[in-house]
Amino acid sequence: MDKKLILPADIERRSMEIIELELGPTPRLTQSERTVLKRVIHATADFDYRINLVFSENAVEKVLDALKSGAVIVTDTNMALSGISKPALAELGCEAKCLMADPEIVSTARAEGTTRAVAAMDMAAEKYADKKLIFAIGNAPTALLRLCELTMSGRLAPALIIGAPVGFVNVIQSKERLTRLQTPHIAAMGRKGGSTVAAAICNSLLYMLYDRN
Amino acid sequence: MDKKLILPADIERRSMEIIELELGPTPRLTQSERTVLKRVIHATADFDYRINLVFSENAVEKVLDALKSGAVIVTDTNMALSGISKPALAELGCEAKCLMADPEIVSTARAEGTTRAVAAMDMAAEKYADKKLIFAIGNAPTALLRLCELTMSGRLAPALIIGAPVGFVNVIQSKERLTRLQTPHIAAMGRKGGSTVAAAICNSLLYMLYDRN
Repeated sequence: MDKKLILPADIERRSMEIIELELGPTPRLTQSERTVLKRVIHATADFDYRINLVFSENAVEKVLDALKSGAVIVTDTNMALSGISKPALAELGCEAKCLMADPEIVSTARAEGTTRAVAAMDMAAEKYADKKLIFAIGNAPTALLRLCELTMSGRLAPALIIGAPVGFVNVIQSKERLTRLQTPHIAAMGRKGGSTVAAAICNSLLYMLYDRN
Repeated sequence: MDKKLILPADIERRSMEIIELELGPTPRLTQSERTVLKRVIHATADFDYRINLVFSENAVEKVLDALKSGAVIVTDTNMALSGISKPALAELGCEAKCLMADPEIVSTARAEGTTRAVAAMDMAAEKYADKKLIFAIGNAPTALLRLCELTMSGRLAPALIIGAPVGFVNVIQSKERLTRLQTPHIAAMGRKGGSTVAAAICNSLLYMLYDRN
């Protein structure tokens, strides 16, 4: 291999060209929604998201406003947290947090017989009550269901909920519940999703405001 | 939502039952290979891996020997690193490392006009030369191609290479090159893969030796 042959920025540019070509028209999506979709496909090589990825009206525009005024992104996995661009967050004065490994979460979940994911959402809602909040859920349907409860009961009004848990139990239901909310949301419907998808959605939004070059 | 309704261990057990049922027979796989496949499907909800996931002969058995004697898992993303079970690693006396953000890697890559991924593989091969090494590649085809070069030239003899970069440029080629090596390998052929897949493969192997209950 010629060590100097292909650099990541070139690979990404060429990848996006291939995705653009293979994706074809997406009449149901706005231009910015299509940009989000393309980054998800870039992260997964899975064109199923052409169908699966849904957006509430003006979700992208609303969350960009939040990101411009220093939002906090809360994830349900350290993996998703790890995948979100730190330079972009820093540049925009935003933060990303995952409370799943917080010792208080572990003990609360145990005491209440609930999941750490549920306890982490409760804690985030309380801890960052004065912040613009973006929830990026890539793993736990229980986290997403809890966010739906908190918003429906008026205890939480996030700028965006990203619903992308992956799996076989309660996952589809949790996303369907999310899409019935008035809260701005982006959801990967069906079984698919994951930490990479949640992180890719966050990054696609951040990159609309942050020039990586 | 009844907070006490569904706990993660139950969700995982029921998910695995659904996967078992939908997967059907996999005559080309051994029982332990099927276990790896099921965890990848659990992490992705994508049954394409039934076809895509390939194993060199006895790769699983060989890497289990390495994991029993304190292997080092090297990843090409902090995301994959973040997804590998730390309790399982600790219990087995193994470690996981990602050198991508190491300041020396950044400067080496810049100086050589190469990718950080290539520089990180070179550094890992040198730094952990006396260890049983498992490489878990979920992102950078350049990392995987470099590992192929290092092993073919005799400078590296890892216990396992997991080839699961995702994407559109050089990804398929890098995996095809891997599967031509004598080195034990597990590869997600085609475009799909990613940090979650690389981490899921690692965890499936760790969980064969580590009882989570």
